Amino acid sequence: MSVEAVGTTRRGRGARRAQRQSRDITMLPALRRRLPLTEPMDGEQVARIDAASMEILENVGVRFRDPIALEDWRRAGAKVVDERVYLDRHLVRELIATIPERFTYQARNPANALPFGGDHAIFVPMTGAPYLRDLEDVRRAPTLDDLANFHRLCHMLPALHSSAHHIVEPCDHPISQRHLRITYSSMKYSDKTFMGMTTSPRNAEDVMEMCALLFGAEFMESHPVVTGNCNGNSPLVWDETMLGALRAFCRRNQPVLCSPFVLGGANTPASTAATVAQLNAEALSALAYTQVVRRGCPAIYGHYLSTVSMKSGAPMAGTPEISLMNFMIGQMARFYGVPWRSSNTLGGAKTFDAQAGYESAMTLNAVLLAGCNYIWHSAGWNEAGMHCSTAKFIVDAEVCAMGYRMAEGIDWSDFDTALAAVADVGPGGHYLGHPHTLERFQQAFFMPEMFDNNSIEQWQAEGSVEITERALIRARSLLADYEEPSLDVAKDEALRDFIARREREIPAADALNQEY
Amino acid sequence: MSVEAVGTTRRGRGARRAQRQSRDITMLPALRRRLPLTEPMDGEQVARIDAASMEILENVGVRFRDPIALEDWRRAGAKVVDERVYLDRHLVRELIATIPERFTYQARNPANALPFGGDHAIFVPMTGAPYLRDLEDVRRAPTLDDLANFHRLCHMLPALHSSAHHIVEPCDHPISQRHLRITYSSMKYSDKTFMGMTTSPRNAEDVMEMCALLFGAEFMESHPVVTGNCNGNSPLVWDETMLGALRAFCRRNQPVLCSPFVLGGANTPASTAATVAQLNAEALSALAYTQVVRRGCPAIYGHYLSTVSMKSGAPMAGTPEISLMNFMIGQMARFYGVPWRSSNTLGGAKTFDAQAGYESAMTLNAVLLAGCNYIWHSAGWNEAGMHCSTAKFIVDAEVCAMGYRMAEGIDWSDFDTALAAVADVGPGGHYLGHPHTLERFQQAFFMPEMFDNNSIEQWQAEGSVEITERALIRARSLLADYEEPSLDVAKDEALRDFIARREREIPAADALNQEY
Repeated sequence: MSVEAVGTTRRGRGARRAQRQSRDITMLPALRRRLPLTEPMDGEQVARIDAASMEILENVGVRFRDPIALEDWRRAGAKVVDERVYLDRHLVRELIATIPERFTYQARNPANALPFGGDHAIFVPMTGAPYLRDLEDVRRAPTLDDLANFHRLCHMLPALHSSAHHIVEPCDHPISQRHLRITYSSMKYSDKTFMGMTTSPRNAEDVMEMCALLFGAEFMESHPVVTGNCNGNSPLVWDETMLGALRAFCRRNQPVLCSPFVLGGANTPASTAATVAQLNAEALSALAYTQVVRRGCPAIYGHYLSTVSMKSGAPMAGTPEISLMNFMIGQMARFYGVPWRSSNTLGGAKTFDAQAGYESAMTLNAVLLAGCNYIWHSAGWNEAGMHCSTAKFIVDAEVCAMGYRMAEGIDWSDFDTALAAVADVGPGGHYLGHPHTLERFQQAFFMPEMFDNNSIEQWQAEGSVEITERALIRARSLLADYEEPSLDVAKDEALRDFIARREREIPAADALNQEY
Repeated sequence: MSVEAVGTTRRGRGARRAQRQSRDITMLPALRRRLPLTEPMDGEQVARIDAASMEILENVGVRFRDPIALEDWRRAGAKVVDERVYLDRHLVRELIATIPERFTYQARNPANALPFGGDHAIFVPMTGAPYLRDLEDVRRAPTLDDLANFHRLCHMLPALHSSAHHIVEPCDHPISQRHLRITYSSMKYSDKTFMGMTTSPRNAEDVMEMCALLFGAEFMESHPVVTGNCNGNSPLVWDETMLGALRAFCRRNQPVLCSPFVLGGANTPASTAATVAQLNAEALSALAYTQVVRRGCPAIYGHYLSTVSMKSGAPMAGTPEISLMNFMIGQMARFYGVPWRSSNTLGGAKTFDAQAGYESAMTLNAVLLAGCNYIWHSAGWNEAGMHCSTAKFIVDAEVCAMGYRMAEGIDWSDFDTALAAVADVGPGGHYLGHPHTLERFQQAFFMPEMFDNNSIEQWQAEGSVEITERALIRARSLLADYEEPSLDVAKDEALRDFIARREREIPAADALNQEY
């Protein structure tokens, strides 16, 4: 090897190492909001939504399609007629009163545990995509390797507080066994918080077992270590699968997101205020049920929220009513003192185009100013959730960091020294070389790396690289530098043994098997 | 001609007419905000910014590079040393106290006159682009015809409240005469409000003359009919061109946007709070000067606001600090009781891509919730203002309509009937056929036309049309349907005569001629 080649190699390695060192992958702490919230309702209007929801619960009722839940409700003192449960407002209020207003959401790396609820907010990436746009922006079915890559990216992107669960559906593995591999992937490739599958009561039990192996069953009794999402069937129905999964989580004291699935105008009235009243009734009914299952168990007010196009029937995102409803729902969740989950960056674009940008930023602003605690679907969502875009995943995560900075509010710490610089520089001067500028610039002004603000001449000279490609270059570079967080060998083995056993037990029939 | 051909023609015409009729181009009234504003400062912090700005005005001073202004200030009682004016806070407060908090911004079509200031907001398109991306998305130098097309689009897009002025620079016409043709184009192709050129004091006088021909000189004495923008040279400098143009407007009682031109970190300190203090001092100095020129003249608190990348020196948009500073500046403008102009949809993307979408939506949300009255650069801005994108112009205008709806707040009008629908439909039903839905859907939920929310299969079956092309199809269709608003023949002739005379007087030297 020539001296020159050695030199080149060293420069290459050195540059790579330097880049890795300069790239800070340290997770941002849970956001502590200091910006005032957008609260479009006065106290009377909050009371009006509350009263309307209570009337719905008392007089219209909620269908719990699940014999165990119906029996639970009967025992709890509710009026049950066939599958319909009529919930007295006093019972509802009494039940939801025991939901903790805040808790610490544990991670296997204690440094990544998150204060949750109140003024805090966390960003959780999208989940559930049946397709992905991959590292070459090709739309295709995802694999377990793809899912692992997303979990690796979660681990490295500072604004993401969670590796969630099935960011993409690993289609190379049987559906009936998928939840095991997904959970393992979440646990293994990132040491941040994660989510647990709720695709069936039995699957949820498996997740609980795996969490017990990772955190200890005893620890779970007093520490939330995983969240699970249970969708309602709006209007006013909770089904057996979701209720069974909810019970599996609650029995182990783990928080469930109680999420009515709202397609505004299709399964709710064509009215923002009345949609919120119905959604609120639905969320309260499930939140109350978590406390029937286990008093004091943490639970999260949730929803999936879209409005529907009357022209096409398609769900819409980033619309003004979604922002308004988010503002209102945030007020209701705070009124009840329950932490709240909403969705970020939703959108229906087919590619990572301007539509995707507008919709995502609109929604991010709304949920931040609405005071959301659990900001789900914060990275990657596109095509109404049908695919997770790798490029968008990277950019969304940076945009979340920008929203994070905004929500932190104004930094007054150096106001006086900065004013001294104004006197120093005086009329017609400039600040670029001033000591205050040199000292403060990095903290003072966010510099997005995925947004290109150079001149068109410079951009063209550098190859006219579009944002999708810029983000994919970043994704590839992150993955090349990825270092797996260490996992206790005995725990890892126990998890693998559990999965092996369960995969022997569960038929690998390639169909959704709700029994397992 | 065969019967069939006649039939086809009729169907064609009929369809065209029907489309025209179904497309509502009626301008939205000036937005009346009902959503609460984002106010990150408490009273003490507002007072702190005010005090810091007043100290800058008193002790650092502002350079007015203009002998007339210096003489005016001397007469008004300010301390003047060389070109530097030291403004006592009592003098500043006394002067700005006579700026009207609100007024009616007149249009040649009285139906398009706008209540301005207070809770009201208007959307004004971008201006000043040296390039455009045209109806085929080709980036090139604009012509007077291109400018006319943008003015036609302004006339037809409901959320735009103004045709502004030189949306794009008509490069096929001599610079020294351009202001005449630009003003005529604004007046002729739209009957909404518009802006006047301030490229030189003499040009501003020409604009005043043309406004007098259109509205009557007498009418202008008591009615604002045109706005002009005067940029400061931050830090703390106002130059002769801008000050002369400002005087031309103020003498005729026409409102000037007093706009410090902020590149945060380059011509302001690396601090959001101190940048606002400096910008506020700059704006106040020019606002006060408008009242030296003419007491009681309307004036608008303005700014151009970006932060600068320390890596490249490029201005950045959509960053968290820009949002925060907008929130703060809105509070300051309201503290002084002066209407306020900010900028919308700024961004540095080279094409109409995801970056453009994120940046524009971020900024729109910020300026709406900051309570901006005059939301400039609301359509078309791209590439840091170097080009106006026709496609983005169309989409931005629709996104403004979405922001408008959000800022209007919650509609409670049909809450009770909508709740009755919840009881009607009950658990597990759906609302699509319900009479309440059929009656209310159009008003209840905004349906963006430029965002495609169909399935990917349907989108592909329809030709995979990207958002840029969708918007350009819309632009071409609007222009094909454009009907010129009638203009009084005598006034039109007087305007043309004036332009002809001035073009004989002004040398067509193809260089910026500040004397004319």
